[in-house]
Amino acid sequence: MSDYYRLVVSCPDQVGIVARVSGFIARQGGSITEASQHSDLATGRFFMRYEILADSVGLSAEQLREAFTPIATEFAMDWALTDTTRRPRVVLMVSRESHCLVDLLYRWTAGELDCEIPCVISNHDDLRALVEWHGIPYHRVPVTPDTKPQAFAEVERLVEQADADSVVLARYMQILPPALCQRYAGRVINIHHSFLPSFAGAKPYHQAYQRGVKLIGATCHYVTEELDAGPIIEQDIHRVSHCHTADDLVRFGRDVEKAVLARGLRWHLEDRVLIHGNKTVVFA
Amino acid sequence: MSDYYRLVVSCPDQVGIVARVSGFIARQGGSITEASQHSDLATGRFFMRYEILADSVGLSAEQLREAFTPIATEFAMDWALTDTTRRPRVVLMVSRESHCLVDLLYRWTAGELDCEIPCVISNHDDLRALVEWHGIPYHRVPVTPDTKPQAFAEVERLVEQADADSVVLARYMQILPPALCQRYAGRVINIHHSFLPSFAGAKPYHQAYQRGVKLIGATCHYVTEELDAGPIIEQDIHRVSHCHTADDLVRFGRDVEKAVLARGLRWHLEDRVLIHGNKTVVFA
Amino acid sequence: MSDYYRLVVSCPDQVGIVARVSGFIARQGGSITEASQHSDLATGRFFMRYEILADSVGLSAEQLREAFTPIATEFAMDWALTDTTRRPRVVLMVSRESHCLVDLLYRWTAGELDCEIPCVISNHDDLRALVEWHGIPYHRVPVTPDTKPQAFAEVERLVEQADADSVVLARYMQILPPALCQRYAGRVINIHHSFLPSFAGAKPYHQAYQRGVKLIGATCHYVTEELDAGPIIEQDIHRVSHCHTADDLVRFGRDVEKAVLARGLRWHLEDRVLIHGNKTVVFA
Amino acid sequence: MSDYYRLVVSCPDQVGIVARVSGFIARQGGSITEASQHSDLATGRFFMRYEILADSVGLSAEQLREAFTPIATEFAMDWALTDTTRRPRVVLMVSRESHCLVDLLYRWTAGELDCEIPCVISNHDDLRALVEWHGIPYHRVPVTPDTKPQAFAEVERLVEQADADSVVLARYMQILPPALCQRYAGRVINIHHSFLPSFAGAKPYHQAYQRGVKLIGATCHYVTEELDAGPIIEQDIHRVSHCHTADDLVRFGRDVEKAVLARGLRWHLEDRVLIHGNKTVVFA
Repeated sequence: MSDYYRLVVSCPDQVGIVARVSGFIARQGGSITEASQHSDLATGRFFMRYEILADSVGLSAEQLREAFTPIATEFAMDWALTDTTRRPRVVLMVSRESHCLVDLLYRWTAGELDCEIPCVISNHDDLRALVEWHGIPYHRVPVTPDTKPQAFAEVERLVEQADADSVVLARYMQILPPALCQRYAGRVINIHHSFLPSFAGAKPYHQAYQRGVKLIGATCHYVTEELDAGPIIEQDIHRVSHCHTADDLVRFGRDVEKAVLARGLRWHLEDRVLIHGNKTVVFA
Repeated sequence: MSDYYRLVVSCPDQVGIVARVSGFIARQGGSITEASQHSDLATGRFFMRYEILADSVGLSAEQLREAFTPIATEFAMDWALTDTTRRPRVVLMVSRESHCLVDLLYRWTAGELDCEIPCVISNHDDLRALVEWHGIPYHRVPVTPDTKPQAFAEVERLVEQADADSVVLARYMQILPPALCQRYAGRVINIHHSFLPSFAGAKPYHQAYQRGVKLIGATCHYVTEELDAGPIIEQDIHRVSHCHTADDLVRFGRDVEKAVLARGLRWHLEDRVLIHGNKTVVFA
Repeated sequence: MSDYYRLVVSCPDQVGIVARVSGFIARQGGSITEASQHSDLATGRFFMRYEILADSVGLSAEQLREAFTPIATEFAMDWALTDTTRRPRVVLMVSRESHCLVDLLYRWTAGELDCEIPCVISNHDDLRALVEWHGIPYHRVPVTPDTKPQAFAEVERLVEQADADSVVLARYMQILPPALCQRYAGRVINIHHSFLPSFAGAKPYHQAYQRGVKLIGATCHYVTEELDAGPIIEQDIHRVSHCHTADDLVRFGRDVEKAVLARGLRWHLEDRVLIHGNKTVVFA
Repeated sequence: MSDYYRLVVSCPDQVGIVARVSGFIARQGGSITEASQHSDLATGRFFMRYEILADSVGLSAEQLREAFTPIATEFAMDWALTDTTRRPRVVLMVSRESHCLVDLLYRWTAGELDCEIPCVISNHDDLRALVEWHGIPYHRVPVTPDTKPQAFAEVERLVEQADADSVVLARYMQILPPALCQRYAGRVINIHHSFLPSFAGAKPYHQAYQRGVKLIGATCHYVTEELDAGPIIEQDIHRVSHCHTADDLVRFGRDVEKAVLARGLRWHLEDRVLIHGNKTVVFA
């Protein structure tokens, strides 16, 4: 597989951005294998993502960043240039339910998720054997009402020690403290087991069952301080009927959760998700 | 097309209901062409719907009802026996948007909706020509904040005069008064332009756009006094992305609304929807 | 609504195309509101579509075309620059079934399809009243096994006389002669009532019913000389079960056909569909 | 979890079947928790499935079967009465691709698949470690063009020795010999990686890519002597676009295959799938 540079940009929209950026890349001999752009007409903001064959450019990622900086400054860009030879480091956090973890580990093994998994953190020990069988370190950090501050200090220490780029709450079932949310803003991904904004909070499948909905869903979103209210990355649904019990909804929901989290995480790892206020631009 | 009797029952579950009902039908020589049953284990309630070839039974609908009454009483049934030779009468209520009306009239013309449409009622005149071209009477009843009581008295009079079995709010955009909701409980169908319970109330597509959801939906439900909270008959969704404006969401939404309302109404007309508290059993 | 120029390009991929094109547009002051690109790595072909605010450019469409020609030549482009002030002219061809026609006329009336409909051509008279009610001329050209050559000569004459840019076979149910297919290559859109390549040819829903499939579909594609084998624009499906008769499949199929044809046609009208051999690039 | 008897019947349709069967169950005191019926009007065949709380009946499964036999004979029924205390034994057959196996083992561990897995058979050794980690015996039976008869004799011996009720080809990638297909007719489930009947045979995703389809699919079906032509149990699809390579199609396909096979197998294990000629009745 070839190596790529990925240039991701958002900035105020104006005439000539694409010409400047694509002209810059062309002058470096850069071969663009994938290009996505979006102009949000309502807010006047511009978004772009370029995938450039690394070998086609005579510069290292660091040199390319330096060369690009004047353009970025001129257009007041929020931007990043990543290098696929450096795989992002993703810490998984889980509780007792295994479905999302099993699914992510399968995909990781199969090469669908291009990242390192330096460790898995859990408040329970149920999933230790599975994780360790995959050769990944497993840390248990119990969380009780009384020990929350210490527990999350320990979680933060482990995440830092793992040099994590991102954290995935793969059905972690605990609410992260605000400070942690802020520190890793735009880098913590959660899977919520409902079609948000319906049924935020606890026991969403049971809420859905009570309301008699005909479709249940799941939502992958970035974690913010406000519970279940962060920018949505991906959602999907599963049809249900009067035949199904609340337990059936939970079972179907597991499949939707797995699929939605896997898609959302893959896009995040490939720098396809750009945050725009409380919304996302997803160059899927 | 053959004529059918449809027997629809709900009652407390107990051993022997099916044997009694199916035994009764067999003794009349009744040929059952479709049978559906559901036991709700959580509430202990039983639901069934039988479609019986009318010609196979030697009795009229009225005679069959009389013969069945002792069994219905014994099992404390809520029940109805309908006769497909008598087509239900459905009053459509609309405002200015035509998409649901056009769709329902097409399906009605094509024989997909087995009902009479004695009239269409609207608070505007925009859709008069279309309705009258189909040979259906059109009544305009303007509604203003000041004239609501009189307007809805007139609506009620027209519905009554039309001898309506059911009323369909095909994007009527006005809230029916509680008394009307109660009087026609379980017989007024609304299409709400969101995936309830998300985005109840006004301008749901704009709410959805603001929240940055990745799927929008529509919900067909029975109208109750509490706004957008009645038993859900059917829901469906359409995928959207950051590329789509609020106007695009409205446009996609029209397609979902049409489809969901048409399915819900068809099931209602075929006696496939049984209300169970604030939920529905749909023998689709 | 603003006016736009749409630049659609396909050419052999090479470094610098985007830079040249976007540089050209920026020099004209062109404000790009939507941009899509695709590099087909397997064949080395590049595709792009730009939507440019007409007012932001100081040139007429004709002048812009002239100014762009040297770049187009240099990169060996297949290209077109359209001007949304000139609405494309679309001839609809139908037989006796109304569902696609009703749907397209509704969308056209609602402003979802930005085109002129100079006339509808049919081999029957069933849909004349509907079409004429919309103020559109209706031509009947009967087709019998003996009169095919004359009939299609007349069809061709009518299409020509209508100055048609595109032709839509909205369930026309006749096979166009090869010469007509060639003459309007890439401009005749058909809706096939199956999920191609399954069930090509006649009576696809009955074929699907016999095979016992659990999903039925529809396919919108460009017409080529080989029956049901042209480039696919869009497809969709509907779930079915053992409960459904062949007639039910036909009924569900109508809904899928309408939706798929409407999406395909809209994309075609907005210059979002680029043909690539026997496949399509769809910048939806 | 409670124990159930499941009565599954198909027979020529006639008046009184339901009355006789439900009357019989009621006389045994049987509490029916789920009931499904279907009359195929085209062929005049009747299908039913009852789920009966075992504790509500005073008889063992064997006694109940004996008591029911006269009714079965009278109506010329194909029938079975299963007892959920005896879990069906399912042999999995795999090749080198792990996605279906990982998924089935997860679901089995999570209690979603109510069966024993006496062993896994493969023509390769790639998946041995995974299988053995789950405590399941793994047999490798290499298959070469020269050794097919011996290899499949050994496969048959292992399946027999495992006392298997059903065999699942979870991407086994070898064609079973006709004799084996006949011997286990209606008991061997395959997942085909296309939306049958499209793209039967080898490399379906590459065929789909070449044809330029906009949806790919997977099909779970019973294996018959004719390749990829047996009764379809379940199908599903995944949307693709011009952006996706043949490899992407393979990757998306894995998700569809997993989901479709898991649903099909679950229904099969719960006696929800009744074969009707080359089609299925699925009481899902």
